[in-house]
Amino acid sequence: MNASGSGAKTEHGRFFEDFRLGETLVHATPRTVTAGDQALYIALTGTRFALHCADTFAQALGLPSAPVDDVLVFHMVFGKTVPDVSLNAVANLGYAGCVFGVPVYAGDTLSATSQVIGLKENSNRKTGVVTVRTTGLNQRGETVLDYIRWVMVNKRDPAAAPAPPETPDLPDSVAAADLRIPAGLTVAAYDTALAGSPHLWDDYAAGERIDHVDGITIEEAEHQMATRLYQNTAKVHFNQQAAAAGRFGRRIVYGGHVISLARALSFNGLGNGFRIAAINGGRHVAPCFAGDTVYAWSEVRDRIEVPGRTDVGALRLRTLAAKERPASGFPAAGDGGAQADPALILDLDYTVLMPRR
Amino acid sequence: MNASGSGAKTEHGRFFEDFRLGETLVHATPRTVTAGDQALYIALTGTRFALHCADTFAQALGLPSAPVDDVLVFHMVFGKTVPDVSLNAVANLGYAGCVFGVPVYAGDTLSATSQVIGLKENSNRKTGVVTVRTTGLNQRGETVLDYIRWVMVNKRDPAAAPAPPETPDLPDSVAAADLRIPAGLTVAAYDTALAGSPHLWDDYAAGERIDHVDGITIEEAEHQMATRLYQNTAKVHFNQQAAAAGRFGRRIVYGGHVISLARALSFNGLGNGFRIAAINGGRHVAPCFAGDTVYAWSEVRDRIEVPGRTDVGALRLRTLAAKERPASGFPAAGDGGAQADPALILDLDYTVLMPRR
Amino acid sequence: MNASGSGAKTEHGRFFEDFRLGETLVHATPRTVTAGDQALYIALTGTRFALHCADTFAQALGLPSAPVDDVLVFHMVFGKTVPDVSLNAVANLGYAGCVFGVPVYAGDTLSATSQVIGLKENSNRKTGVVTVRTTGLNQRGETVLDYIRWVMVNKRDPAAAPAPPETPDLPDSVAAADLRIPAGLTVAAYDTALAGSPHLWDDYAAGERIDHVDGITIEEAEHQMATRLYQNTAKVHFNQQAAAAGRFGRRIVYGGHVISLARALSFNGLGNGFRIAAINGGRHVAPCFAGDTVYAWSEVRDRIEVPGRTDVGALRLRTLAAKERPASGFPAAGDGGAQADPALILDLDYTVLMPRR
Repeated sequence: MNASGSGAKTEHGRFFEDFRLGETLVHATPRTVTAGDQALYIALTGTRFALHCADTFAQALGLPSAPVDDVLVFHMVFGKTVPDVSLNAVANLGYAGCVFGVPVYAGDTLSATSQVIGLKENSNRKTGVVTVRTTGLNQRGETVLDYIRWVMVNKRDPAAAPAPPETPDLPDSVAAADLRIPAGLTVAAYDTALAGSPHLWDDYAAGERIDHVDGITIEEAEHQMATRLYQNTAKVHFNQQAAAAGRFGRRIVYGGHVISLARALSFNGLGNGFRIAAINGGRHVAPCFAGDTVYAWSEVRDRIEVPGRTDVGALRLRTLAAKERPASGFPAAGDGGAQADPALILDLDYTVLMPRR
Repeated sequence: MNASGSGAKTEHGRFFEDFRLGETLVHATPRTVTAGDQALYIALTGTRFALHCADTFAQALGLPSAPVDDVLVFHMVFGKTVPDVSLNAVANLGYAGCVFGVPVYAGDTLSATSQVIGLKENSNRKTGVVTVRTTGLNQRGETVLDYIRWVMVNKRDPAAAPAPPETPDLPDSVAAADLRIPAGLTVAAYDTALAGSPHLWDDYAAGERIDHVDGITIEEAEHQMATRLYQNTAKVHFNQQAAAAGRFGRRIVYGGHVISLARALSFNGLGNGFRIAAINGGRHVAPCFAGDTVYAWSEVRDRIEVPGRTDVGALRLRTLAAKERPASGFPAAGDGGAQADPALILDLDYTVLMPRR
Repeated sequence: MNASGSGAKTEHGRFFEDFRLGETLVHATPRTVTAGDQALYIALTGTRFALHCADTFAQALGLPSAPVDDVLVFHMVFGKTVPDVSLNAVANLGYAGCVFGVPVYAGDTLSATSQVIGLKENSNRKTGVVTVRTTGLNQRGETVLDYIRWVMVNKRDPAAAPAPPETPDLPDSVAAADLRIPAGLTVAAYDTALAGSPHLWDDYAAGERIDHVDGITIEEAEHQMATRLYQNTAKVHFNQQAAAAGRFGRRIVYGGHVISLARALSFNGLGNGFRIAAINGGRHVAPCFAGDTVYAWSEVRDRIEVPGRTDVGALRLRTLAAKERPASGFPAAGDGGAQADPALILDLDYTVLMPRR
């Protein structure tokens, strides 16, 4: 108990030396996802995938109603982890092994825990890399999302003794056998006209490049509303007064909002990729700010057979988002040590489900 | 199948020569309208008509719950048509014969088709006028909206041979006999205090002018969120980078958003016009941009008896929206060849239902 | 009936001389509160109190589902009063005796009435102070909110004879016996990890100060959307064209939005204050504008035993919001005649419920 102190009751987030290998963090603020969240998600991103927009379309595929957008689920789970994992993060380094589990419907309540699976102090002793495996559950305890994320976190005290270094093995991708198809899903009645694209799984080939054509300009109010909707509390997105004194002089757009926009833009060319089944990896190549116009293009990395299904296949995609420049020239990701195109802001490797012919 | 091409999988919209007279376009992305959409609609427009705001008010009128706003239904249906009809439109020329059918409730799923009923190349051979009749349906196949719209669309190839010209007859207005009153609706328990206006049908007279007093300033985030909520994909609303190089140097506000604002403003003076039954015609007189402040005034064109009803009447209204100038001076629409007031942005002729004394 | 006049049908709001002592104003536009409103509220404020976010959390406390945010209920009721009470207000002077009644759930319909309990002309004869007691009801006629508010209102005609002056007695605070605990609420299963704070009622002490740390920058689109969601029609929030000619040259942020932000920020330090039971008093110390960054700090004024409950207590709090300056220095409220810190914008005295150890 504290009768006068400042800060005794407030949370300032964990620093590197506060994490313990193997500990499980129970994240606060379980969240009932509603039709209101899905409406806002459409308003903020313009997404048009029919499965998430229409109960009738979902029911024709054997589901009880339209599940909420997969990326919205990702953001809801991710947002919960921020106060415990990345409030003092310097950089969000990457994602791996992200599997989408059971679909989330309006009325489901999501909660999340994270297990610390890696800790490694950096040589400058000022920061360290924390790796967590986060699991999002619905109110029945079913997994809706499971992913690994690693972040660079400040130390409170550079002199603090580090934990023994532990760097977990990270999967390069989610294996086909680990992709989850929603229970009861069938595509016998899949309607490509209503879905908005005639191109099915069989029509794509590894190496194929798709320019998603459109550009979308981000406003401060939009990214702030999106990020608050997910109850993501990272300070850099909301406080212009503090940001003015910082490195960029401006609020930074939540990288996840760029993922949302890239996925929404990808509808034009990948409209039948009705569900994200996995995120194999991802990198926020550069920051994005209000006023930036975002474009995207995708490369088909692989066409994957889903074990036990001849009606639904998977496409492993690499979607790249650029800013202030159309993606028609397929701005390069800088593989193999080459320089990435300076317009690039996102490099996302993920897997979608698509009906087969 | 295409292993390398850009654009093979992406939609770039139909050009004038792609339309065939009589063909029916099945629009993508059916949409379950929810309480989330209605909440956003209120937040974006400030509309206050009691029927759309309160289940109790709707139930007192014999309806199962509050139907979503009529103009929101219009936008949802309209939005679906954009990728197929007007992605390459130069100008949205007009509307006619728009009838609102059964009310739309949260949980209903809307879909839309359009039949091409007119095609006429312009003399410059670079563009042509496409006229479509669009029908919006709910999940039971009941018509929620039916309207005619004509747009000027670019040709892909000026040298392409035009189809034989066909210009459909357009109704000057929706006839009283064609106005649909929601099944079961009764106004015996209509409460004018809760509705917010003491003025009923009998109190209005043809020629009467009403200044709706208030002004509302539009922000980029607002019109973008509204337009994305409707999944309207017209490029001019979202991409500042492209707009900067265009005619106006700025993103253009979706004309339908101006209709929404004008209808919301009209509450002050027409608060008992509880339902839009028809849009007889409409014209976006000039473009509107973020930062503009919108005002509106209305003229009562006609007081219409609804066949078979002595409790509910219809008012044919002409609502004009202006920008950057209050409507207290009733800025002129420029009828009979006169110059329209340069402040005008919308000239809408529509019919509302109102209780009679 | 008026065939040509401007303004005959439009409402311009009551002036001071239009109010009658003792009269009851029935406010228009009953409103069904939905999951859409709650989602927007989260997106606009970032609030994280678990009770309002998760049905599961609410059910563990004995409630049927997550009630909507208390401050959202306040805004919904308050908004309805604006067209009748404060459209011609010069200043919103204060609140008192605000008691929150039964919780509001998605699907409930709110309506409001106000009784005029005070009228006092100012010595300049141009304005007067109107005091009203407003009651918000749900569709079953249960009180959800009851509060006193007083505003300075313009006279239409300075020469108009004033009503006999009547200044009601205002309670300094809501008594412990008047605090309402939701029926059936139990905290036996209250989970502090999910709530996001380990600090319970017993851990706080009168005089304790808490800096809520974070700052949040307001955008025009955000405060406009929030204020329209509540159907608050005060002109100063929406019309930049008119504001440009006014005292500040800008739209003013609805003071209630600042209350929302301060409450949302207070989560960090007061996360278990799961319900606002009362607002004892409040003052908008200075106006707030888009672009301002808002911070907040709280002082615990009193730790209150709730009659008949040993499991739940109440904290009387004073939360102060400042702009453009972190609250870490606890900017002074200017008590006892001292000058208030110029950064202060809100001084709110309210009472929250919190589980006891």
